[in-house]
Amino acid sequence: MKFCSHCGHTVVFEVPTGDDRPRHLCHSCGAIHYVNPRVIVGTLPYLGDQVLLCKRAIEPRYGLWTLPAGFMENGESSEQGALRESWEEARANLRVDDLFSVYDIPHINQVYLIYRGELTDTEFGPGPESLEVELFDEKDIPWQEMAFPVMTETLKHYFNDRAQGQFSLHRGVIKRKL
Amino acid sequence: MKFCSHCGHTVVFEVPTGDDRPRHLCHSCGAIHYVNPRVIVGTLPYLGDQVLLCKRAIEPRYGLWTLPAGFMENGESSEQGALRESWEEARANLRVDDLFSVYDIPHINQVYLIYRGELTDTEFGPGPESLEVELFDEKDIPWQEMAFPVMTETLKHYFNDRAQGQFSLHRGVIKRKL
Ligand SMILES: [Zn+2]
Ligand SMILES: [Zn+2]
Repeated sequence: MKFCSHCGHTVVFEVPTGDDRPRHLCHSCGAIHYVNPRVIVGTLPYLGDQVLLCKRAIEPRYGLWTLPAGFMENGESSEQGALRESWEEARANLRVDDLFSVYDIPHINQVYLIYRGELTDTEFGPGPESLEVELFDEKDIPWQEMAFPVMTETLKHYFNDRAQGQFSLHRGVIKRKL
Repeated sequence: MKFCSHCGHTVVFEVPTGDDRPRHLCHSCGAIHYVNPRVIVGTLPYLGDQVLLCKRAIEPRYGLWTLPAGFMENGESSEQGALRESWEEARANLRVDDLFSVYDIPHINQVYLIYRGELTDTEFGPGPESLEVELFDEKDIPWQEMAFPVMTETLKHYFNDRAQGQFSLHRGVIKRKL
């Protein structure tokens, strides 16, 4: 951030009075430009024993598999956003059972909220950001070709909970790979 | 948003190619300035049968009561942020039991994540954004002087769960009052 989005003046990066960390400040109009983590909303869509995955048609992680998810938009609830992303990426319609996982990824300033839900039809297919959309049995999940650790974690918890016959909320922190 | 924070040029508000909603676009440098919901992190601190509330020393809702909470910062997990806010607003130290509530407030573009946890000492007291910090029994909660519906909902679920002897995650959407 170099310029004030309110007045166009150059911003500085310094600690505002009464604050404890540097922000982008405009000394011309007085605006403080806060930058906060973003929320990624998505779903774990299942049908019978199978779960739905999307093969990414965009960077990062082009060609790798993921659950449908994307940035939450203003004006929507996280569940609405998760359903919107499921439609956009996988043309998937589903009925949400519950919130299934909440993951923080502090080093990229993201919070993931993933809802678990059953597909209500089999009319799914790739949206513009997916190459393929497919249902997988647990034994066929492409574990070595998953795009994001947060999705791998979520899937592992799903299959584990399913085996135990009870689903609960899972949360955690995904740390930077060393 | 009137000016591009990257190059200082005037931005326009229109639908980018391939998108489905208007964004702030810079035709000079090509930047698209996304605006997304913000995450509010907080805690429900308890000690024995009592819960900790803060009387707000800032607007909005000056003088009304709330649970300690504030905007999640970049680089922290939601739990870390919740503990940070508890310290900043209430000088409260606590040991987190679990994530307790997840609320969307779409009309103000906020997602609340509230963690439940026991105070580890009684050295709490008002930080700069609080007038008073106090422990309340359920019967003494100032229900008519609560600052935010999301906190009232969270407290009601807490006392209800406690009466039933089992805590679970609560989620919901807070709608605009009509
Ligand atoms: Zn300015
Ligand atoms: Zn620009």
